[in-house]
Parts: sequence; C-alpha cells; structure tokens
Amino acid sequence: MRISIEKEKFLNSISIVSKAISNKPNLNTSGHILIDATKGFIRLLANNEDMAIQGIVDGEIIEEGMVGVDARLLNDIIRKIPDGMINLFYNEREDEDAIKVLIESDNIKFNISGKQGYLFSDLPEIERDNKLEISQYALKDIIRRTIFCTAVSSVNKVLEGELFVIKNGVFRVEAVEQSRVAIRQIEINNTESDNRLIIKGTSLNELIKIISDDTEAMIDIYFMQNNVVFEFDSNIIVMRLIEGNFFDSSNLKYNDYITKVEVNKKNLYECLDRTTLIARDGDKKSVKFDIKDNNLNVSVISSIGSINENIDIEKEGEDIEINFNPKLFIDALKAIDDETVTIYLIGKKFPCFIRKEDVYNYVILPVLG
Amino acid sequence: MRISIEKEKFLNSISIVSKAISNKPNLNTSGHILIDATKGFIRLLANNEDMAIQGIVDGEIIEEGMVGVDARLLNDIIRKIPDGMINLFYNEREDEDAIKVLIESDNIKFNISGKQGYLFSDLPEIERDNKLEISQYALKDIIRRTIFCTAVSSVNKVLEGELFVIKNGVFRVEAVEQSRVAIRQIEINNTESDNRLIIKGTSLNELIKIISDDTEAMIDIYFMQNNVVFEFDSNIIVMRLIEGNFFDSSNLKYNDYITKVEVNKKNLYECLDRTTLIARDGDKKSVKFDIKDNNLNVSVISSIGSINENIDIEKEGEDIEINFNPKLFIDALKAIDDETVTIYLIGKKFPCFIRKEDVYNYVILPVLG
Repeated sequence: MRISIEKEKFLNSISIVSKAISNKPNLNTSGHILIDATKGFIRLLANNEDMAIQGIVDGEIIEEGMVGVDARLLNDIIRKIPDGMINLFYNEREDEDAIKVLIESDNIKFNISGKQGYLFSDLPEIERDNKLEISQYALKDIIRRTIFCTAVSSVNKVLEGELFVIKNGVFRVEAVEQSRVAIRQIEINNTESDNRLIIKGTSLNELIKIISDDTEAMIDIYFMQNNVVFEFDSNIIVMRLIEGNFFDSSNLKYNDYITKVEVNKKNLYECLDRTTLIARDGDKKSVKFDIKDNNLNVSVISSIGSINENIDIEKEGEDIEINFNPKLFIDALKAIDDETVTIYLIGKKFPCFIRKEDVYNYVILPVLG
Repeated sequence: MRISIEKEKFLNSISIVSKAISNKPNLNTSGHILIDATKGFIRLLANNEDMAIQGIVDGEIIEEGMVGVDARLLNDIIRKIPDGMINLFYNEREDEDAIKVLIESDNIKFNISGKQGYLFSDLPEIERDNKLEISQYALKDIIRRTIFCTAVSSVNKVLEGELFVIKNGVFRVEAVEQSRVAIRQIEINNTESDNRLIIKGTSLNELIKIISDDTEAMIDIYFMQNNVVFEFDSNIIVMRLIEGNFFDSSNLKYNDYITKVEVNKKNLYECLDRTTLIARDGDKKSVKFDIKDNNLNVSVISSIGSINENIDIEKEGEDIEINFNPKLFIDALKAIDDETVTIYLIGKKFPCFIRKEDVYNYVILPVLG
C-alpha cells in the first residue's frame, strides 16, 4: 500500500471520522481508523457501538491496500507535520496482526504500527429510497436547541435519544428528561414518507460538531429499518436506532393555562443566572417566581445568602407563586433566540410551558413545596 | 458602611487582588477579600502565606467601615450584575463574627455574609528607599521566559523560587531545576544599590497575570529585608522572600565547548515537538541528536514507533551524538524569540548551552546511557 495525501485534507478527514472513535475502546480495532485504498479512492472509516463514519479524502493511490492506524496518534502526527504532501505506506504484510506503517514528508519519517484491514467491519449496505434533504444549518440548529434535554445515561435507553418525527411537511425533534421536555419543529417540503425514529443523543452531539453552519450546504438523511444515515460533502455517517416507545408529547396540554406571561428573555435569563450563585447548595434548591400584576419577583434564600429581583412582565390571568430549578429554565432560555418569550402556567404543581406556536415548546416541571 | 463603585472598576480590582487568594484556605479570613473604606479611599486586600495584594478602587464612600467577603462569591456576583453603579453596605454590626452584607444594583438585591474587618492582617510597613523602576513589559517578559524552570514543589524551598540579581546596571533572573537552568538579563539604569533575592515562582506567576504588556507602563520594585514590593497603577503586591543559598550559576562554563551549532529555531522546535509523539512512554525516553557535518539527525524509537528527521545546521567543531529529554529543549526554545539559536556542546555527558551573550543562557543536562 502506498498513498499520497495533502496534509490539510488528510487532517480534516481524520478529524471528522474520529468523531466515531469511542472513549471506551473494547474491540480489537476500536480506537483505530481504517485507511482503505482498495476501491479506487481513499476512504477513512471509524466505528463505535452506536455509529460509523466514513470520509472520502482526495489523494493519489500509488499502490492499493488498507490498514488500521491508532486514531489519536495518526491525528497528532498529521497535525504536527508541516503543510505539503504526506506519503503513507507499508511494504510487506507480516504474519501477525501488526503492520509497520511509514508516514513520510520531506525530511520527516514516522514509523508506527498498524492493524490488518480485514479486521475492520465495513459500513452496512445503505438503502437510499426513504430520504429527507435539509440544510446542514437547519439540522444542526434543531438538534443543538433540544439535545440538552437528552439523558446522558439512563436505565431507559429511550431517554438517551432524541425523537425525530417527519410528518405532514414538518420535521419535529423531541427530547425528554425527568423534569423537562424540549420540542422544536421546522417546515420541510421534500419528504417521501412519514418517519418516526429515536437516535442516540451522544451520536447526534458528534454529528453537530461536524456539519456546517452554512444554510446553503445540504445534508441527506436516509431512514432505514435499523439505522439512520447522514450523507453530506463526501462523508457518510450511519447511526444505529434506539428501539422503544418514546414519551407521548401530545399529553402536554397548555390550553388550560391560568396565567400567561410575556417577559424579556435576556432580563429573565440574566436574573436566573444570578440566582444560581445563591441556589448553589444542593441541586434541589429552587427559585421562587412570584408573579403579581405586571411584576415577576424572583428570589431564593440559602446558606450562602439571598437574592431578590424584580422584572417587568406583561401578564394575563391569575397571580401565582411557583418554584423552579433555575438551571432548567436557564437551559431552555439559552435555546431560544427571541427577544421576548411567552410562558404559560397551569398551576403551582403543574408543568409550565415556554412555547411559540409551530416553532418550539419547552416544558418544565416546577419544584414542589 | 456604605460604598458605591462602578461595576467594571470593582470587578477589575477584585480580579487583581484575588490572585493572592490561596487554593488551600486555612486561616479564618483566607479565601476572603477585605473591603476597607476607613481611610478616606476604598481599598481591597487579600493575603495568602506567600503574598498580599492591595488594590485601590475608585468609588464613593457614603459611610465608613470595612468588611471581609468571600472572594469567589464576590467576584461572581459583581461579574453577573449589569454595568452600572453597585452599592455595597451593612447596617449594623452583630455580636458574632458574621456581618450581613447587602450588594444592590437597580432591581437586584444580594445578601451575603461577611467577616469583621479587624480579623484581617494588614500590609506590612513599606520602606521605599531601595528601588528599581522598570517597565511592566520588561518584568513580565523576563519572568515568563525563565519561570518554567522553577520547581512547583521541592524539599529545597530555594528551588521553588527565582533568583533576582541587580548588579552593575544589569537585572538578571535565574531559575534552576534538576536538569536545567534558565538565565535571562536586561540592562537597567536606575538602581540605587545592588540586590540579590529569591522570590517564590508561584507568586511571580500570579504577578505576570496582572501586570500589563505595555512597555510604557512602569512598575516600582522595592527591596526590603524580608519582603519585596511591587507597586504599579494603584496596586501594591508584597511577597515574602525565600531564604537560602541559590545555585551558583557562575560554575556553568561553556567556553570549553567542542561543538557549536547554529540552527533555525522553528525547525528544531517543530521537529522536537513531533518527537514527543513517539517519546511519550515514560518520562525518561530521550531523543538522540546525531550532529554530523552540517546535518542534525534527530531520532527516537519507542514502543509506539519511531521518528527520524534531518535538519540543516551550521556546525563548528566535532561531530557528536548526545541524548536529551525533548521537553526540556522544547521549553527553552519556546522561551526564545530569535530566528536562529546557537547551541554549545561540551561533550556527551556534559550540559549543553543555548545562549546569547548578555541576553539568555538556557542550560540543559543530557540524558546519559
């Protein structure tokens, strides 16, 4: 095997496929990137138990072959080599699994060990008949404004995922945690059929690090039986779906609200951010919202001290006192760009809704007395 | 007590004096900043076992008094309050040590506990008769280019310090570790007398975070019996001196060198940076320098793999093979701005000198065997 790749292109592709490198390596090939030059083009491939990423990188194949190389070491070596062409090759296969891989550029010669290519599992067959095409920006945006509501680790695997729903020209994403729900939707115009699937949050979190903020750059999403595939630029990402029943968000009814509050988002956000300085001791310390006429009084007393603030609001309905974990409110407000937010309150012991019709719905449970 | 301070000025001064807040609080008042409005101006003061910092902050004293407040909490509160005037006050002293301190700005009211001002120790009396005045830039520069050679923690407390020598119109700073020495000097023209003192590296490290990069901004250094004082802008920093005998750097003789090498600094630095990818396993793994004619061959073999590079050099004297810990060389080269560095080698088992007459001298011991 002997290939030649320009440094920046190589590094860019390594950094993309490395997103599928697991932090808890267990398989023989985990932690490694497969470099495959047997198909007439050069591709890099990495896997973990939840996802696989393949990137195609421009370069010259002088002699066919494939080899697996430690991802972090490869990344470090290529990063620290000056701009220019980099040659990667091995001369002979040895009997054992280890291969001696040479990486050369000008006066620099690295020699590291590699693994036989046949040890690596390939991408599954990709069926391209059930597809959604949207901008990379739109996908990134809808994920990053909801993903904070997925559980990092849960007995109920479904809670580690986000629900993607494609139905009636709308793409909706939902995430649920013990005390909150985040729902966002956008209009789409090119679905071939309805879809409903659950994708692991940690995998989506890696995806949004890779895709661009460009509204012109598109991404194709293919829905398969057990997998979802994201294809963009020259990269393919396959994620295993999570099986199970997702929380039914149609149960979240706000129409019976007793109080509706409009408030400047920045004012409320900065106020709640300040309350965290006092509400620090113990996760359960809640902040009191005292809504009276056109004033929202926010206060908390703890062993650290106290804070008391007043914020102007527009109110419809009843006065109400209700307690919240400020962090849940802060996270939701962070995910909203609007200057003003509307909050619907059902009662002291019922969920509160920060919502904008057909755009978002952040639901937060109060802390009970 | 009641004072009024503009947010940004308050925050700036808190951030400066907080550099004397210890990470290992032990005293009753440690971790706290004293706010003192009893002298006709407002000053902030913080102490740890090695240093004390006082900052004077513009503001209005409505009622005299002083109080100690938790440094981190105060910093967080002031940082999270919007721009504008901030009022800080307490109404009555209580019998116990705790005082209720109110911090107010517009609609925001914080209430936190404070400590009685009399619990705090003041700055020592400052004698201003033995002084060096240099630019903040020059002081910062000479410290940051040597301080990496001070031991963070050593049985021999002297090794935790930097030696300051003021003599014959020259200000020299020296730092010594087990396998290396860093020496830098600059010309000065305003010393009143010779001085030789040892100052703790961790304290100097905090100092260079505070002083500016401005070559026009000056700093006064006062040399006292047991302390050194840095005075600049409206801040005073007092550091306790370390007693003991510093390493005698006049023993470091390079004149008998057998090999003199001139090399492009960036090329050597980047090469050695790459070797660290391979020399990783075990701190003792050394890099071989093989100097032959006008070529420097750098190589290392480890369980990770190998690297081999050639760099063009100008050489005078003998060919030589010598082993170094690449990190020590990298640190020294990082502290040098010149395009080309000159290296003097005495022999395979003797220290090597990266030096520029009257400016710097970085001495590195080779790795034997």
